[in-house]
Amino acid sequence: MTPVNGAHALLATLEANGVTTCFANPGTSEMHFVAGLDDIRAVHAILCLFEGVATGAADGYARVTRRPAATLLHLGPGLANGWANLHNARRAHVPLLNIIGDHATYHGAFNAPLQSDIRALASALDGWIRTSTDSDHVASDVADAIHAAYGPPSQVATLILPADVSWNELTTRPAKWPVVSRPPLIAPSEHELVRAIDALRSKRTAILVGGATLDAEQLNLAERIAVASSSKFLVETFPAIMERGVGIASPERLIYVPEFAAAQLQDIDALVVLGARDPVSFFAYPNVPSALRAPTCDLIDIGAPGTDTLSALTVLADALGPARIPAAVGDVADAPSGELTTQSLAAAIAATLPDDCVVSDESNTAGVHFYGATRFAPRHSWMTLTGGAIGMGLPLALGAAVGSGRRVLALEADGSMMYTLQALWTMARESLDVTVVGLSNRSYAILNFERQRVGAIGEGSAGQRLLDIDDPTLDLCALASAQGVPSVRVTTAEELVEALRRSYATPGPMFIEAVLPKRLI
Amino acid sequence: MTPVNGAHALLATLEANGVTTCFANPGTSEMHFVAGLDDIRAVHAILCLFEGVATGAADGYARVTRRPAATLLHLGPGLANGWANLHNARRAHVPLLNIIGDHATYHGAFNAPLQSDIRALASALDGWIRTSTDSDHVASDVADAIHAAYGPPSQVATLILPADVSWNELTTRPAKWPVVSRPPLIAPSEHELVRAIDALRSKRTAILVGGATLDAEQLNLAERIAVASSSKFLVETFPAIMERGVGIASPERLIYVPEFAAAQLQDIDALVVLGARDPVSFFAYPNVPSALRAPTCDLIDIGAPGTDTLSALTVLADALGPARIPAAVGDVADAPSGELTTQSLAAAIAATLPDDCVVSDESNTAGVHFYGATRFAPRHSWMTLTGGAIGMGLPLALGAAVGSGRRVLALEADGSMMYTLQALWTMARESLDVTVVGLSNRSYAILNFERQRVGAIGEGSAGQRLLDIDDPTLDLCALASAQGVPSVRVTTAEELVEALRRSYATPGPMFIEAVLPKRLI
Repeated sequence: MTPVNGAHALLATLEANGVTTCFANPGTSEMHFVAGLDDIRAVHAILCLFEGVATGAADGYARVTRRPAATLLHLGPGLANGWANLHNARRAHVPLLNIIGDHATYHGAFNAPLQSDIRALASALDGWIRTSTDSDHVASDVADAIHAAYGPPSQVATLILPADVSWNELTTRPAKWPVVSRPPLIAPSEHELVRAIDALRSKRTAILVGGATLDAEQLNLAERIAVASSSKFLVETFPAIMERGVGIASPERLIYVPEFAAAQLQDIDALVVLGARDPVSFFAYPNVPSALRAPTCDLIDIGAPGTDTLSALTVLADALGPARIPAAVGDVADAPSGELTTQSLAAAIAATLPDDCVVSDESNTAGVHFYGATRFAPRHSWMTLTGGAIGMGLPLALGAAVGSGRRVLALEADGSMMYTLQALWTMARESLDVTVVGLSNRSYAILNFERQRVGAIGEGSAGQRLLDIDDPTLDLCALASAQGVPSVRVTTAEELVEALRRSYATPGPMFIEAVLPKRLI
Repeated sequence: MTPVNGAHALLATLEANGVTTCFANPGTSEMHFVAGLDDIRAVHAILCLFEGVATGAADGYARVTRRPAATLLHLGPGLANGWANLHNARRAHVPLLNIIGDHATYHGAFNAPLQSDIRALASALDGWIRTSTDSDHVASDVADAIHAAYGPPSQVATLILPADVSWNELTTRPAKWPVVSRPPLIAPSEHELVRAIDALRSKRTAILVGGATLDAEQLNLAERIAVASSSKFLVETFPAIMERGVGIASPERLIYVPEFAAAQLQDIDALVVLGARDPVSFFAYPNVPSALRAPTCDLIDIGAPGTDTLSALTVLADALGPARIPAAVGDVADAPSGELTTQSLAAAIAATLPDDCVVSDESNTAGVHFYGATRFAPRHSWMTLTGGAIGMGLPLALGAAVGSGRRVLALEADGSMMYTLQALWTMARESLDVTVVGLSNRSYAILNFERQRVGAIGEGSAGQRLLDIDDPTLDLCALASAQGVPSVRVTTAEELVEALRRSYATPGPMFIEAVLPKRLI
């Protein structure tokens, strides 16, 4: 591999830092990167047919491994196409190395058709951004980007790589490529810890966990603290990834509907937050407060993203002493039968969930009973829609399968699926063990619900027609099999159970279209 | 419809200004707009399952009508998902009213999950941007946005509409809603006209037309000038919309490959540009100049976007006097038979093209012979990929069908189709007369070509695998029929001809998968 160009320096530095997975949708300005893959073979590039698949996959990879994958996107439009799932990744606080090929440095001045302000697009991700301008600096730029991606807090690091910086040869090949070590987590604030101990001992307190606090060890520690202090124990509504199932504490989930969430938090004098955020309403509604915490309730935030929440929880648990935690006893309900409802759907999934799988949950309204039903299911990791930008579930499942090698179950609402259905093709191409349940209610059910909530019901059918997606009916099975994923349609709980079991026993992806009653809620 | 809220004011002002088509992908923050559709029924909202479909459709609508359609997108992720086709619209210099719903004004401070910097995303479109902050001002904001969209030059006007500005009632309902008149075009520069006349009379000159110059009247005028002055007559590589076919002058198309384009422009001392841009290479390549015009060649630019090129051409034609234009004689080749090649594909399309149709051409490498083959076809309008962001062809066809009511033929490469295939569903839903030819070569053929051009060929197969999309093979027919569009697969020229004729004779959409040899070029 002599001579060495900028693209080689990039790939070699990725390899040196263990960033060996790249979800790619390349174009002309990335051709030297593409060619370099034949020289630096440790970096595995996975082709995605749409950029939103690549970025969501990098997010899923990072959630299960806590390490960054790289993307490879093509200029401003490529970044824009991948932006929504980068927004979700940003809200998940994952490390992600976002590589954007650009025109050659000197070509920008010519305002060619694909020229645009890549930095403006990237700036809206609130992460780290750098344009590499010299082939000799590419390696250190990549190392800085990986360092920035790790954080703390972890973030989306965008590296813009002009084509000539890729193709120009290095003046000298470095003796070794730079390696960055993962920076330590941020120590929790002593002051806030003292406040938390005081509140837990003397006030009506709730503990709200989220973010990187949601592994089994920390959840069980947090439960011990909650029990010892008679505090309420809550988890944020949309965790990036949470360990769940038998033997793991299961806090009450903060409800999406703001009036209900506010009710969960009422009569609380202090809210101790670890890894989550001071809770706010997802959307604004007429005459509903945006803040969910009452003005009279103290906020004690000891676990902003990037904080060492394990040590914080250890301090709190030690301070509060042992707690008698009643053994969490329960069973998963038997496999259901009969018609498919939100209840039987959740029960079917819970009854069949294989051990140690990863769940990518973009089930939206159809998944309302999932959290409760899986309380005593085998241990699994549960990922949700962190940033509200729908079209995340399938890409996230793809990336999680690549990163973990575990069986992934994707629960995917039909409306959301249509944003990034191209992820199915890459699942087939890479023979990934992903079971997709496509939830076909032929409606933007959440919007029908929201529309009623805001009182925005007109007298005609023009508005309603914008929220229904049943004319024509989407054949989800055909969309999957057309992309190489075997598919089956189920209309009863028994059929769903059978299809799930068959998929879990079969290597590779499978798509199950679950036909649900329209407008479940 | 009493009381009147901000959403009503928006819709009523759209109606008053004839902006009665809205390509929509709404979310919770747009629910009052959705409800208002039942009150202001003149505004027709068309649901798109992905935002890139909505924005590309608004572009296609504007190209055929020269009037704006509105979009309706949901917050930053919605704008991002639609951004690539807004970029293409920006490069097409069409008027487009881009409406983005946002959180309520007071909710932004809470940094809810969907909060992001919408203005940063919009700023990269180089157009007009305003956030409406008061329900009483919505009508004038909308009017200003429509005025800005018209230009000149026409542009993407982005209006950000917070949810509370939508739902709050107006303090007073205005007696009438504001109506803007379309501003006049920019008068061409007298100075440049004098220079152009001098060059056309005395120098080796080429006339390069593009943009809004490409209707029959202006093309025929430009040809007269070229003949009278013995000038070369060229058209830009990627026109937004161009009238073509029998009876319309057909300039030589500037070639995509920069070395070839530079050769087309060599031995020219002056380049007179109308509606097009001083030509530059689409991409940069090692050791290839970005500028296609030689440094010794004068640029005379008398038709930047928004210029009254018709009056400029009239002045030039009058100055140069009459020209003897040989009658353009030719026939469309007979319907081809045998295997599908780029030649037989173009011939099949030319031989069957119905009168007065609109062609949305995202055929990329497969369409290389289309321009020549359709020289003497029935009159038609031809639209191409202006901004280089692939995934434009199907949305553009959708919008053109809505705007024109004419038969639309979409020539769509498989790789590009996969970016915005959701457009097919809306074609079925709206029963639009769109014939889609899906060009299945199972490869990013243009990238294989570009990769060879930049010499970026590695020794292994990792790079090659990123440019081939044949593992698994995409069943394009199934992707169409799963979305409600009847489909047929053809593998010979005869079959293609028969399928095209059948589609043109049948109301509604049809999808024809044309299976081509892999890597045609």
